[in-house]
Amino acid sequence: MTTVYDVTAWSVPGNPTATPYNDIGLIINSIIADIKSQQTSQASKPGAVIYIPPGDYSLKTRVNVDISFLTIRGSGHGFTSLSIRYNSSTSGWHEVNPGGSRVRVENTDGNTEAFRVYRAGDPRLSAVVFENFCLDGVSFGSNQNSYVNGKTGILFDSANDSCRVERMGMVYLEHGLVVKDADALSVSGNFLAENGTCVKLVGSGQATKVTDNLIGAGHVGFSVYAENHWGLLVTGNNIFPRGQSMVHFKNCTRSSISANRLHGYYPGMVHFEGVCTENLVGANHFFRETEKFDPLKPYNNGRDDLFGLVHIEGGNNSVIGNHFSYDVPSGSVTPSGQTPTIILVASGNNNYLATNNTVSATAVHTVTLDSSTTGTKVLDCGSLAQFQPFQSSNSFRATP
Amino acid sequence: MTTVYDVTAWSVPGNPTATPYNDIGLIINSIIADIKSQQTSQASKPGAVIYIPPGDYSLKTRVNVDISFLTIRGSGHGFTSLSIRYNSSTSGWHEVNPGGSRVRVENTDGNTEAFRVYRAGDPRLSAVVFENFCLDGVSFGSNQNSYVNGKTGILFDSANDSCRVERMGMVYLEHGLVVKDADALSVSGNFLAENGTCVKLVGSGQATKVTDNLIGAGHVGFSVYAENHWGLLVTGNNIFPRGQSMVHFKNCTRSSISANRLHGYYPGMVHFEGVCTENLVGANHFFRETEKFDPLKPYNNGRDDLFGLVHIEGGNNSVIGNHFSYDVPSGSVTPSGQTPTIILVASGNNNYLATNNTVSATAVHTVTLDSSTTGTKVLDCGSLAQFQPFQSSNSFRATP
Amino acid sequence: MTTVYDVTAWSVPGNPTATPYNDIGLIINSIIADIKSQQTSQASKPGAVIYIPPGDYSLKTRVNVDISFLTIRGSGHGFTSLSIRYNSSTSGWHEVNPGGSRVRVENTDGNTEAFRVYRAGDPRLSAVVFENFCLDGVSFGSNQNSYVNGKTGILFDSANDSCRVERMGMVYLEHGLVVKDADALSVSGNFLAENGTCVKLVGSGQATKVTDNLIGAGHVGFSVYAENHWGLLVTGNNIFPRGQSMVHFKNCTRSSISANRLHGYYPGMVHFEGVCTENLVGANHFFRETEKFDPLKPYNNGRDDLFGLVHIEGGNNSVIGNHFSYDVPSGSVTPSGQTPTIILVASGNNNYLATNNTVSATAVHTVTLDSSTTGTKVLDCGSLAQFQPFQSSNSFRATP
Repeated sequence: MTTVYDVTAWSVPGNPTATPYNDIGLIINSIIADIKSQQTSQASKPGAVIYIPPGDYSLKTRVNVDISFLTIRGSGHGFTSLSIRYNSSTSGWHEVNPGGSRVRVENTDGNTEAFRVYRAGDPRLSAVVFENFCLDGVSFGSNQNSYVNGKTGILFDSANDSCRVERMGMVYLEHGLVVKDADALSVSGNFLAENGTCVKLVGSGQATKVTDNLIGAGHVGFSVYAENHWGLLVTGNNIFPRGQSMVHFKNCTRSSISANRLHGYYPGMVHFEGVCTENLVGANHFFRETEKFDPLKPYNNGRDDLFGLVHIEGGNNSVIGNHFSYDVPSGSVTPSGQTPTIILVASGNNNYLATNNTVSATAVHTVTLDSSTTGTKVLDCGSLAQFQPFQSSNSFRATP
Repeated sequence: MTTVYDVTAWSVPGNPTATPYNDIGLIINSIIADIKSQQTSQASKPGAVIYIPPGDYSLKTRVNVDISFLTIRGSGHGFTSLSIRYNSSTSGWHEVNPGGSRVRVENTDGNTEAFRVYRAGDPRLSAVVFENFCLDGVSFGSNQNSYVNGKTGILFDSANDSCRVERMGMVYLEHGLVVKDADALSVSGNFLAENGTCVKLVGSGQATKVTDNLIGAGHVGFSVYAENHWGLLVTGNNIFPRGQSMVHFKNCTRSSISANRLHGYYPGMVHFEGVCTENLVGANHFFRETEKFDPLKPYNNGRDDLFGLVHIEGGNNSVIGNHFSYDVPSGSVTPSGQTPTIILVASGNNNYLATNNTVSATAVHTVTLDSSTTGTKVLDCGSLAQFQPFQSSNSFRATP
Repeated sequence: MTTVYDVTAWSVPGNPTATPYNDIGLIINSIIADIKSQQTSQASKPGAVIYIPPGDYSLKTRVNVDISFLTIRGSGHGFTSLSIRYNSSTSGWHEVNPGGSRVRVENTDGNTEAFRVYRAGDPRLSAVVFENFCLDGVSFGSNQNSYVNGKTGILFDSANDSCRVERMGMVYLEHGLVVKDADALSVSGNFLAENGTCVKLVGSGQATKVTDNLIGAGHVGFSVYAENHWGLLVTGNNIFPRGQSMVHFKNCTRSSISANRLHGYYPGMVHFEGVCTENLVGANHFFRETEKFDPLKPYNNGRDDLFGLVHIEGGNNSVIGNHFSYDVPSGSVTPSGQTPTIILVASGNNNYLATNNTVSATAVHTVTLDSSTTGTKVLDCGSLAQFQPFQSSNSFRATP
């Protein structure tokens, strides 16, 4: 009995024409069925590893992962920029597509996901691992700059524990990774770029880490999105454009965004939506400029520069020790003639902002406090002229 | 001559009944003997890789690693929560045990460790690697919530250099990883949870990193413990309950705890014991609440809320830019009626505390300075009312 | 058709005597030729993985990587200290050389690099991966402490995207990794020590990460060097001596050095050369002492203690929340009798330094501002006596 499978060596019982090249989904589902048929004791279901060698595979049938401890592993995240390719003439190019262990997401089964991880009953699925292969959405259709094609790379669709998505590549998917109800998830070492949304943590979640990734979403979505999470750690990531937000929290609490490098083209690079409380934004480098790539200049996230480069809704958050570089020509500021805001506290009380340094060639409000907020403390975050409180119950100490 | 071994393909000379399923320790020791018999030149001992495919293995004989450059590798950390399982009815559960490349630690040889890395003579063992398999202590005996069973996953028992413990899973061991006299050790990407103690660095050590892990110890031990270390970097970890401390330093110096997320149920989440000097605690998120899981409510670490969520013994440390969330109902504070302390400087002079923000629904002392301490600087860490100095040679600047 | 190659199983067509033991370069070049001969469609060139099992290989012919999506992978970084070995009597030692998947860099082809990654034309090479093997320069010649032998481990010599150098070991190379024109490069999880220079990012670059490494260069070079980069993230590294600098930026902008542990023997541990602007140095631990190893005491980087432990040329940088331990006996300070500087702003305007704590047994200037600089803000970085501004257009707030 083996627990090590190679997709290129597997034959689907009763379906001799199935190959990983014409439908890797069929192959992996058949392997999973084999694993389940051999591991029937409640006490011993160690799972298996399914290996995807470097190669060019099509996925037409969604893979359904409903066992714990399964590792699906390739040899190569295989990223190449499809955005550059689709906006260029590629005549004479050495290659035009992603590679490595490349799975083209081309469902013909009516589903939108390449992989769905889901199981009813107890316990939650544990230690499912996706590792070091490429999920390629291939195309955004008639407008290759739309970032919309309805495709999802991996969907964790039921509560899960101690799963890993590591060293993966994802490109040209409307949604890369979507995880529902995560506990102690690891999203680390990935290369997720040119997807509508790259990482989307939905439902609820706790004690998850998103670390050491290279991530850049499209203008329609988010680089990292989390809702109803607590205890989330987002650290050590290099997050580049575009993305409506680099990190978007919706109703998240007691989470941390630290030691990242964040680069964006629109306001709202970090966006706390709803009731986001007791989070830390610390020791990050923010750089905001305007779109530089002609084909994508028509797009933005619809927000103006009063929205805040960091937009906070909710109380008791800490923003400490960050650097903000704001490089938007005054002629590009919206609304025209207004003074842009770096940190906007849009709602919530008792936020704490200290030792944040802003560099800007144009005049900015380093901190703006909405009139609905109270008790904010603003220390060494700029001059009095750069501070815009709409009411008085705040503490302000100007950078000397 | 091969240098790639698979435990499921190895036969122990003279012992045809030995299998990795009944004793993987015998198998690996026999493989190591084979490696040594083939690599006898002082100038060329490249070592080998021993692969543990996904499967359910028992270890009854301790593995003795006494060669450099050996990698022992699996395909899957295989964690699942045994704490939940042992405190539940598991009828109808899909599975009840950890999986992946799962090694059950079931020594019958009189030893307490699954793996011991040890060699006398020169040089120190170098570049021994444990990677991506599961060490499962199986049970804590008659009280599954005791976190005591005398079992250790991996013991490095002599001085070592440039070793790696990465992407491992460990569960239900009284001690997960214990390393003596480490130099430039990497403990990264692991999932170590529900062990009495998860990472214990003893003897002495330098230039080690504990990064990017998910870690949560039991109430009897420590998530990360280090003694006599210097130059230790603990960063990018998501450390969850329980653990007497999330990070415990004993006589450590010039080390750093930064950009972690730390969550605990007891005081002393970070504990500097003895003479801990010139360390940095920076840009971390701390969250302290009370035990939420009924079966473990009887347990704690015996410390009261005057001990400090961060407890510092020793001088010249820096605590900068951290967020503290303290969510303990006033009725649960001990000693009853007292005001809890967030940062206690218990001894040592010239510590530096700046821009730490505390959020608490109940009144707290954000900083308490013992009368034995002098020269502490406390800047923007709370109001004067939240400051409790027992003598006067300190510098205090209230958060405005 | 395979895409998984093992160097020990490959025969070079027409060259039956070639083995990976006598020249692994020939073998790998032959494998690459095979890959190219089989992947000729512009639309489908997934690449391959070339596996180097643990073993002792010589490289006499440079490997030329000119395809995207190639992974070259071993099983073991195999580091052992050659510095200790060459400065010791090794009689009776168990072993004297590095191991793991060890490639000895012994070119006889007139080239100086073991691996060169280069391709003309479009697109840039993408997703080339080096992973988990050892590049050993073997010797620094007649003076084993010279750190000079003209050897380079890996040279990326044309523009590249989304490449990875991860979990590698490199030792006794004059240059370990050199990358020209990097975009979204990942240098993570490596063990790079006892090389003249460990990581050198030249030409230009953006959106790269250097994370989670153990790194220590020789006295002649740099642990991490970057020029003309922007958006570089250096985080989570434990960088130990020696190295002229731990992190050296030349004309870099909007980059970040955060949550590292840095240990050095000379001034200029972090050195911003030329015009370095809008960078963040945050939440790092610095420790500077003097050389402790007798054989290397003759060497240093030629700078005196007025150079600054952090030396900044350029404006609008932020240095926030760092800890500095300076442990140099007053008798070792150069120039003799002078007061050492921790942070020197040598040029550039409007730098921002806040909440940096310095610990030193000898009197230091925690911040010195050259007379050419203006507009520097220095907050809570030491006493007035520790501040040395050579002109007046600065803001200073003493640590209370």
